[in-house]
Amino acid sequence: MPPIISIVGKSDSGKTTLLEKLIAEIKNRGYHIGTIKHDTHGFDIDREGKDTWRHKKAGASTVIISSPNKVAVIKDINEERDIDAITAAYLQDLDIIFTEGYKRGSKPKVEVFRREVHQELLCTEDDNLIAVASNQFFDLKVPFFDINDVKGLANLIEDKFLKTESSPSVSLILDGAYAPLKPFIQEMFINTVTGMVAALKGGKGAQSIQISITLPAGPTNKR
Amino acid sequence: MPPIISIVGKSDSGKTTLLEKLIAEIKNRGYHIGTIKHDTHGFDIDREGKDTWRHKKAGASTVIISSPNKVAVIKDINEERDIDAITAAYLQDLDIIFTEGYKRGSKPKVEVFRREVHQELLCTEDDNLIAVASNQFFDLKVPFFDINDVKGLANLIEDKFLKTESSPSVSLILDGAYAPLKPFIQEMFINTVTGMVAALKGGKGAQSIQISITLPAGPTNKR
Repeated sequence: MPPIISIVGKSDSGKTTLLEKLIAEIKNRGYHIGTIKHDTHGFDIDREGKDTWRHKKAGASTVIISSPNKVAVIKDINEERDIDAITAAYLQDLDIIFTEGYKRGSKPKVEVFRREVHQELLCTEDDNLIAVASNQFFDLKVPFFDINDVKGLANLIEDKFLKTESSPSVSLILDGAYAPLKPFIQEMFINTVTGMVAALKGGKGAQSIQISITLPAGPTNKR
Repeated sequence: MPPIISIVGKSDSGKTTLLEKLIAEIKNRGYHIGTIKHDTHGFDIDREGKDTWRHKKAGASTVIISSPNKVAVIKDINEERDIDAITAAYLQDLDIIFTEGYKRGSKPKVEVFRREVHQELLCTEDDNLIAVASNQFFDLKVPFFDINDVKGLANLIEDKFLKTESSPSVSLILDGAYAPLKPFIQEMFINTVTGMVAALKGGKGAQSIQISITLPAGPTNKR
């Protein structure tokens, strides 16, 4: 799975603004970026009256709009997916993922802080904090960046997460939930699946392999 | 994969209106429905100024918004995915998929026709046409329904596509493209993967299994 970094901070601290600059800077260095925004209250993303909006309103569980260069998916779910499950399902093909929010998640975090709006940091150094970006200096064990020093922050992220040797990766999702695998089990999955795929016509040389299996529900188990 | 049916018709023939009614009717019978809308011109689905919109504009290739009961994904792609690849990637968990449009696809088709706006049908019986819904009677080899007889059309679809015995299914996507598998190869994938998963703690009893594997690009092959 690609590395995942959470941009956190109290409300109105400037998370989206910093993330915009960081995305532009890291994209400029040749990487492909995905973002995940957490929304506790639900959201409306489609526009009233559009065909997909009408399909959804009529009762479709998932609606998709597909064009030559973009695809959009709006999907009902029964329970919130965690960052790993979302990444495994939709973001495998990217180099790095940023989440906006997800302070309670376990991912490495960059906290954004502006002295005009808050008095204390949201995170402690125990929260897997890797950097603070602020317009007020903090003396911490983790690196500090001026809130405008996006290049400095991008350097840290590139060195720490993007220049590592890439190796084969596998992720497994069971009934919508990400299932962590021990390294030797990962290896077993990778070797078995790539072996089967290599034996197929046209399968040799594929760099991304996705397999979905659906088993029938038992008779008392109709979705 | 779930059955896929394309609702086709010339422009302004009432595809979306019929599909809305059909979705409501089939959902009411206890099925979960996905829809795919084809858009040749690209589309704007997100709202200007929203955080995800800002991430995308800054250069993220894929943006996701996640809430407890809904997830939305907006993803850049290099070339348009076909219906099978879209279904395999995003719609495996549903009972039936309707596409709006995709006249050129090979899926079973229902043509919607209104005499006020057109004079001739779009499809011939050779286009894998399974029904026509219209306010003008056509004498064809395929079943004809009044444009308001949504229950009749839903009965046909339920009998033909939804009451079949469900069996395990597998789909394989290589580098974003759907790879069709012969039945005995499908069986090999299903047995091998479900066997590995059953051996994992917590893996027994999973009804949906998704595996994603990413292999490192060669040195000259940086994405």
